[in-house]
Amino acid sequence: TWCMGVDAGSTASKCVVVDANGDIAATGLYGAGAGTVGPQRAVESALSALGIATDDIACMCATGYGRHVLEGSDMQVSELSCHAKGAAKLFPGARTIVDIGGQDAKVLCVGENGALENFVMNDKCAAGTGRFLDVMASIFECTVSDLSAYDAQANEVLPISSTCTVFAESEVISKLAQGLPIPDIVAGIHASVVERTYGLMRRAGIRPLVAMTGGVALNKGLRNRLAERAGHQIVTSPLAQFNGAFGAALYARENLVRA
Amino acid sequence: TWCMGVDAGSTASKCVVVDANGDIAATGLYGAGAGTVGPQRAVESALSALGIATDDIACMCATGYGRHVLEGSDMQVSELSCHAKGAAKLFPGARTIVDIGGQDAKVLCVGENGALENFVMNDKCAAGTGRFLDVMASIFECTVSDLSAYDAQANEVLPISSTCTVFAESEVISKLAQGLPIPDIVAGIHASVVERTYGLMRRAGIRPLVAMTGGVALNKGLRNRLAERAGHQIVTSPLAQFNGAFGAALYARENLVRA
Ligand code: SF4
Repeated sequence: TWCMGVDAGSTASKCVVVDANGDIAATGLYGAGAGTVGPQRAVESALSALGIATDDIACMCATGYGRHVLEGSDMQVSELSCHAKGAAKLFPGARTIVDIGGQDAKVLCVGENGALENFVMNDKCAAGTGRFLDVMASIFECTVSDLSAYDAQANEVLPISSTCTVFAESEVISKLAQGLPIPDIVAGIHASVVERTYGLMRRAGIRPLVAMTGGVALNKGLRNRLAERAGHQIVTSPLAQFNGAFGAALYARENLVRA
Repeated sequence: TWCMGVDAGSTASKCVVVDANGDIAATGLYGAGAGTVGPQRAVESALSALGIATDDIACMCATGYGRHVLEGSDMQVSELSCHAKGAAKLFPGARTIVDIGGQDAKVLCVGENGALENFVMNDKCAAGTGRFLDVMASIFECTVSDLSAYDAQANEVLPISSTCTVFAESEVISKLAQGLPIPDIVAGIHASVVERTYGLMRRAGIRPLVAMTGGVALNKGLRNRLAERAGHQIVTSPLAQFNGAFGAALYARENLVRA
C-alpha cells in the first residue's frame, strides 16, 4: 500500500510516496507552488517514478500554503506538524529543526517522540530567508548554489551592516563596485543569514541534535557557518527539501493504519 | 550677515542660507549625499543664488549623516535637533513632525518652544520609507511624483498584504500582471506606507498641529491618505525638504548671536 504527502508551498511543490513501512519510495519536485500546475506535476513525477497511478494511493495528505485547495487530498495537516513528523524520521534524535525556505524561516523544537513542542518563525521579513539569497544571487547573476561555491573560496568575511534585504542589496552592489572579492562579499551575505537564523534558534532554544531542512539547507557554505555560530553540529539530507511532504505522507499512513 | 546650514544626508544634500532675521534667503539641493560632491554642490548653488561667496558666511552648521566630515563647517548639530528647530519656525504651532526621508522615517514630538521632547524612528527597515516608494516606482517605470498623480485617479485601494518591501514588490508585480488598474495598486502602495507611518505616530503620540517633512511630504496622495488615517490635518511646505538644513542654519545664527 502506498501513501502520499504533498507539500504545496508558495514557490515549489513537493510530493513523497511512502511504502507500508513508512519509508520513502519516490519523490517529486516542481518549481512552482500552490495555485499553479506545480502540485499536480510533482504528484505525476512521483507516481511515474514508481510506475503507479493515482488510484494506487490509499491515502493522500496535503500540507503547505495551498493544502486546502489541493484536489484529491483525503486530509490536510499543518506545515509545522508535518515538518516535525518528517524530521523525526529523517533525522533520528533531532530535537531542533531549522527550516529555511524560499519565503520564511522557522525553528522547531521537537520532543523525543517527534511531537512539536515549540516553534519560532519569521514569515514577515525577507531578511534571513531564501528570498534574501535570491536577491543577492541576482546581483552576481548566479544561482543560490553558486553562492555556496563562492563562499568556499572566501578569505575573509566582509560584514554587511544593514539587516534589511533592500538596504543590504545596495551595500553589496557598492562593495562589488569597489572591486572587493566576490567570495568575501558572499561570505558576508551568508553571515547575515546566519545571524538572523541564530537569533531564531536562540529564541526557540537550541538542543542537539540540530537538523536543517528547506531549500537553503543545500547551501553548504551557509550551513557550515551556522554550525560554527551555534556551536553545534548540523545534519541535513539531500531529502531535506521533502521533509514537509514526507511528514504529510507519514500522517496519511497513520490515518490509514488507524482506520 | 548670512548664516548657513548644510544637511549632508545619505542620498541628497541640502543647503539653506538665512539672513539676520533667521529667514530663508536661499536654498540649494543636490541629488547626492555625504561622501560625494553633493554637499559642495548644494552649497555652491545656494551661494550663487544670492551672489555671495563662502567668506560671506558668518557661521556654518552641518547636520545629517555626513556632518562630521563636512569641510568648512563651524559646528555640528544632530539631525533630530535640527529638524525640531527648523519645523518650529517653518510650521508655527507644529507639535508633531512626521519626517519620511529616502532611507528612514521618524516622528518628532516638539514642545511649544520648538524643543525636541520625544521621537520614534525606523532606520532599519525599508518598508515605510522613501526607499519603499522608489522600489515601487521602478516597477511602473515612473517617478515617485508620478505615483502621487496615479493615486489621484484611484477608484479603490487594493491592499498589499505583505509589509516587507521585497514581498510587497512581488505582490505588486503580480497585481500588475493580473491587469488590475495601476491607480488602485498605487493607492494600496500609499496605504501601506501610511499604515507604517501611522504606527510610528501612535508610538510617538500625536498632538496637533501635525507637519510633514522629508522628500515623501511632496507626495500629495500619500499625505492626504495619512491625514485621513490619523484624523488630523497635516501641513507641509515646498521647503519641507530643507527643514533639517534650515534648522542647522538657525543653530548657526543662534551661535553667532551668543558669541
Ligand atoms: S527589514 Fe527589509 S527585508 Fe525586512 S521587512 Fe523590512 S523591508 Fe523587508
